[in-house]
Amino acid sequence: MILFVVKGNDSLLLEKLNSSSASYKKLNLYGKEVILAWPDTETETIDDPAIEIKVKVKEPYPLVSNKWKKEPTRVRVGDVEIGGDKIVVAAGPCAIENEEQVITDAKAIKSSGASILRGGAYKPRTNPYSFQGLGEKGVKLLRKAGDEVGLPIVTEIMDTKDIELFRNYVDMIQIGARNAQNFSLLKEVGKLGKPVLLKRGLANTVDEWLQSAEYLLSEGDGNVVLCERGIRTFEKATRFTLDVGGMIAAKLMTHLPMCADPSHPAGKRELVHSLALASVAAGADMLLIEVHPNPEKALSDSEQQLTPESFALLMERIKALASAIGRSV
Amino acid sequence: MILFVVKGNDSLLLEKLNSSSASYKKLNLYGKEVILAWPDTETETIDDPAIEIKVKVKEPYPLVSNKWKKEPTRVRVGDVEIGGDKIVVAAGPCAIENEEQVITDAKAIKSSGASILRGGAYKPRTNPYSFQGLGEKGVKLLRKAGDEVGLPIVTEIMDTKDIELFRNYVDMIQIGARNAQNFSLLKEVGKLGKPVLLKRGLANTVDEWLQSAEYLLSEGDGNVVLCERGIRTFEKATRFTLDVGGMIAAKLMTHLPMCADPSHPAGKRELVHSLALASVAAGADMLLIEVHPNPEKALSDSEQQLTPESFALLMERIKALASAIGRSV
Amino acid sequence: MILFVVKGNDSLLLEKLNSSSASYKKLNLYGKEVILAWPDTETETIDDPAIEIKVKVKEPYPLVSNKWKKEPTRVRVGDVEIGGDKIVVAAGPCAIENEEQVITDAKAIKSSGASILRGGAYKPRTNPYSFQGLGEKGVKLLRKAGDEVGLPIVTEIMDTKDIELFRNYVDMIQIGARNAQNFSLLKEVGKLGKPVLLKRGLANTVDEWLQSAEYLLSEGDGNVVLCERGIRTFEKATRFTLDVGGMIAAKLMTHLPMCADPSHPAGKRELVHSLALASVAAGADMLLIEVHPNPEKALSDSEQQLTPESFALLMERIKALASAIGRSV
Amino acid sequence: MILFVVKGNDSLLLEKLNSSSASYKKLNLYGKEVILAWPDTETETIDDPAIEIKVKVKEPYPLVSNKWKKEPTRVRVGDVEIGGDKIVVAAGPCAIENEEQVITDAKAIKSSGASILRGGAYKPRTNPYSFQGLGEKGVKLLRKAGDEVGLPIVTEIMDTKDIELFRNYVDMIQIGARNAQNFSLLKEVGKLGKPVLLKRGLANTVDEWLQSAEYLLSEGDGNVVLCERGIRTFEKATRFTLDVGGMIAAKLMTHLPMCADPSHPAGKRELVHSLALASVAAGADMLLIEVHPNPEKALSDSEQQLTPESFALLMERIKALASAIGRSV
Repeated sequence: MILFVVKGNDSLLLEKLNSSSASYKKLNLYGKEVILAWPDTETETIDDPAIEIKVKVKEPYPLVSNKWKKEPTRVRVGDVEIGGDKIVVAAGPCAIENEEQVITDAKAIKSSGASILRGGAYKPRTNPYSFQGLGEKGVKLLRKAGDEVGLPIVTEIMDTKDIELFRNYVDMIQIGARNAQNFSLLKEVGKLGKPVLLKRGLANTVDEWLQSAEYLLSEGDGNVVLCERGIRTFEKATRFTLDVGGMIAAKLMTHLPMCADPSHPAGKRELVHSLALASVAAGADMLLIEVHPNPEKALSDSEQQLTPESFALLMERIKALASAIGRSV
Repeated sequence: MILFVVKGNDSLLLEKLNSSSASYKKLNLYGKEVILAWPDTETETIDDPAIEIKVKVKEPYPLVSNKWKKEPTRVRVGDVEIGGDKIVVAAGPCAIENEEQVITDAKAIKSSGASILRGGAYKPRTNPYSFQGLGEKGVKLLRKAGDEVGLPIVTEIMDTKDIELFRNYVDMIQIGARNAQNFSLLKEVGKLGKPVLLKRGLANTVDEWLQSAEYLLSEGDGNVVLCERGIRTFEKATRFTLDVGGMIAAKLMTHLPMCADPSHPAGKRELVHSLALASVAAGADMLLIEVHPNPEKALSDSEQQLTPESFALLMERIKALASAIGRSV
Repeated sequence: MILFVVKGNDSLLLEKLNSSSASYKKLNLYGKEVILAWPDTETETIDDPAIEIKVKVKEPYPLVSNKWKKEPTRVRVGDVEIGGDKIVVAAGPCAIENEEQVITDAKAIKSSGASILRGGAYKPRTNPYSFQGLGEKGVKLLRKAGDEVGLPIVTEIMDTKDIELFRNYVDMIQIGARNAQNFSLLKEVGKLGKPVLLKRGLANTVDEWLQSAEYLLSEGDGNVVLCERGIRTFEKATRFTLDVGGMIAAKLMTHLPMCADPSHPAGKRELVHSLALASVAAGADMLLIEVHPNPEKALSDSEQQLTPESFALLMERIKALASAIGRSV
Repeated sequence: MILFVVKGNDSLLLEKLNSSSASYKKLNLYGKEVILAWPDTETETIDDPAIEIKVKVKEPYPLVSNKWKKEPTRVRVGDVEIGGDKIVVAAGPCAIENEEQVITDAKAIKSSGASILRGGAYKPRTNPYSFQGLGEKGVKLLRKAGDEVGLPIVTEIMDTKDIELFRNYVDMIQIGARNAQNFSLLKEVGKLGKPVLLKRGLANTVDEWLQSAEYLLSEGDGNVVLCERGIRTFEKATRFTLDVGGMIAAKLMTHLPMCADPSHPAGKRELVHSLALASVAAGADMLLIEVHPNPEKALSDSEQQLTPESFALLMERIKALASAIGRSV
């Protein structure tokens, strides 16, 4: 596929494309006009003064690739910028259970230095008889808690029919691991124009993950953060296998920021610190961590949520580590 | 969880459940009243003359389990019955491309002995620039082809917003591997009351797969066929690893019929016959096979679709095998 | 790599090779002189009247590949031929425990139609405190049992220091899954000139498995049977995942016969029949099945060994199946 | 299993064990007398004044478990101590190629702060036609280089027949991933009484890995360092998947020190730094890193070996990181 970055008047270039037998798609990404055109044999010879950059991208994810955009993308969520020197920590409960729980938690994680509030309202539970989340009510409680403590919020969407709710209440939209190849959902969320946190599917290769991100970018908005959350392997001593290598391999191929979720692969509290620190040392730009005011009474994932005290300690450790590698929190 | 099968007047039993602190859910499955009640400590001592069967099910998929329903479920799609002695073969193109293609294919597969027509209209493609299927138009073309040759049709749904279309045009609804844990979709499709073909997700354990089926059954309709289509492993000589053992392990735990899809794991035509025969020998009740009138020109999966001639030969081999194991086609 | 099959006087050809800067290796395989020579740039232009076949093999397993040897190799163990129309069944206990057990078992499996006696003397046990097998004594007991009932024997070697014992007592030498990439052992066993049953390692790709076989063939003896015994995946409903697709993918690339071991991946008796039948239907030439006179008292693998009665029934089912696919038992 | 630590005269205790129907094994580990006795039902009631510690260990690796030995084991290799506050770095070429290469490399890695010299002499190569290492000659060259720069050496053993060579020339013996369940080799190496670096097998669970270590400890020497080097998963963007979570899960269960090998899972130079830093941040006590004076001309693993310059930079980064987490290099 040939990717053009266009500067100024594109009318002659479009004419050339229209008169060829090539197909093309025009987008606006990061304040630039980008045109994808194919097949290569038709389009690589096209030339025009309006073309600022012309790149042939072999990877199946041209927009996500850093072949055309060398500088890292910084994704802004409220006042928070993801992808710069500062490591951004999003924290909060696995599931929003009630107002008191989420507000208590929001205060705790903020005071320890988290800058985004996370919490699950729509919960993709393996079992139909498990707590399914508070749904719309949960989203509104999270909004309220975020407003009260002054933090932007991130929460997961599971169905295209909830798009309007998320448009009105949510700052950053999470696509969960189980919907990482729910392409209908990716397309609709891509159109929304809000920052997206895209988790890697349990069985997705780095290549497939980046192609899921391409679904989002090809709808025209580039505010996507990739999130490694553990893949499924034969090993059962941990809940999932956090693929630090795959995360960095992906980072080397894209301009998008990278988040790590150390809570889900850990499965147990004892491992969360180690996985969080490992992710930061490897190069993650953001962390997503489950913290619950009283993990043992949590309605879901009680084994892996940190207490506020443990989270405060982890933040101290992350700060020390970040400064050793030339970053901050 | 305690599962009750109730015969006759349930009013006293419901009274007992209501006056306890237990939760319960009442369903109508296979012409029987079924009540699920929990926690066990509250419900296992409940007794009533209306209780025909009382079973404690430890598995997280009580309705899907064969602990309470020993006889295999037979799922009816049009005139076709899946789960009896007869091995049912569904065949057709990976993607519906145009009217001629699907009708030609439908005639070919019918004349070789297939009894359900399959074809993709909504296509979950890894890459956003790949052919995404004809959508609604494709569903209608498949309906037309099915009617013309007199075969019921099965096709994949990807989004809850398409439920009405599928209600009106489709005989059996497929949930694809990438949506195997799209729980919003499972719930909506479960409510529809049509036969469902539930593929196993690429990274789903047998346990998780059966819990996805439980989502469907817990909405009240029991016409579900499970479909093994290959899991993701380290091996790349095949596209996916057909898990014949997992398929049979699942079959030993449930009353639902079992389908195998030999086309997707094969990835190449040469392997499809072997995997189809292996699945039947192991105990599959149904096969789902991709056949295209001209595979090399197919818009998707061109490497793995059989020609009509090869499919005809495969049907002969399946017939010989089926009769050797006391079944028919 | 260039592979030459040479007929007649090779002196001129060798002279050409010697005078080039190429490296080469000369072997005698299946009654033919075979020369491997590399790099291709030096050797593909070499020509000589003594060259019967000249093939460029891209695969990293030239001798094992069927690019140069189209007809399937038949491996002879005693009077038994593996790789022809007849499906060969090797059966016997997981571990040899005592004389009575192995002789009782040998009689039982022979009377049901098995043609090779298997049994473990050196046992690769995950845990150091598990029964480690009878070692040398076990090998001799197996020999005695084989002689008494008139069946050749196959048993596993674990250490190069036992080569002499195996030379003197064993008809077919098994390389186990955990030693599938113990290259020292492969080299020594290759030199022995006895038929080898090479299991696929738990994490070996088809490509790696065939390269392990190449280690055996490159030592000069070609009597190797490949054995698929289940790979390690995330699925735990079975002990291992029998990779029927990988087995057939391998078969399409090699001239060597293919064995399937349905006992180890099954992990439970109930699944062994299904996996055995699936393997035969897919195209296996041989089966390796654990049978114990009293499985519940077995010192190892008690969950997966068949009773003699169940084995007799399985043999009947295999016979019916074999005849449906044009083979016999 | 019951594990006793015995202090003083054990004769009465042994008498009690002998007169029971229990089995037991007596060892000397870390300067203490340790007795393992089973089955639990026979041995857990045994009491004696000589018993300092009595623990029931459910894990299948009692000696390796930290249930009886809370303080971390420190393994001494020459003057180097592994398992204390200092992070130990072993570095050197994948394969020893000639004297100049290994001595140049040894000087370079020493000057950057590595404290053990690694290098492969016996190379377990997937392909029989790949460079197989210099064998005995290589071991002697490594010894010479180690002596010249004043560093202890670690190198891999592949066959029990080389035990004497390793006894005489090698400071720390590596068991490679492909021999991680070569139990014959584990037993022989365990008897040798030298420090061992035990790599995790490509498909080994944490549980199996610790049981392989148990083979070593049950032969009576406790100087074992565990080494995570990447497991085999579906992901191919990296060569193997470094399982940081599994490494830490193992560390939480054992008293043995933990090493990480970031070179093999990386497969490419660009990822080695990230994986090394991640491992240290997570809690590794040691690193094993491939460094070659001229990686592009290396006879093996040329893609993943660091240049001396890149290694020097990595050491600086490790030092900064180590001090941020309260350790040193």
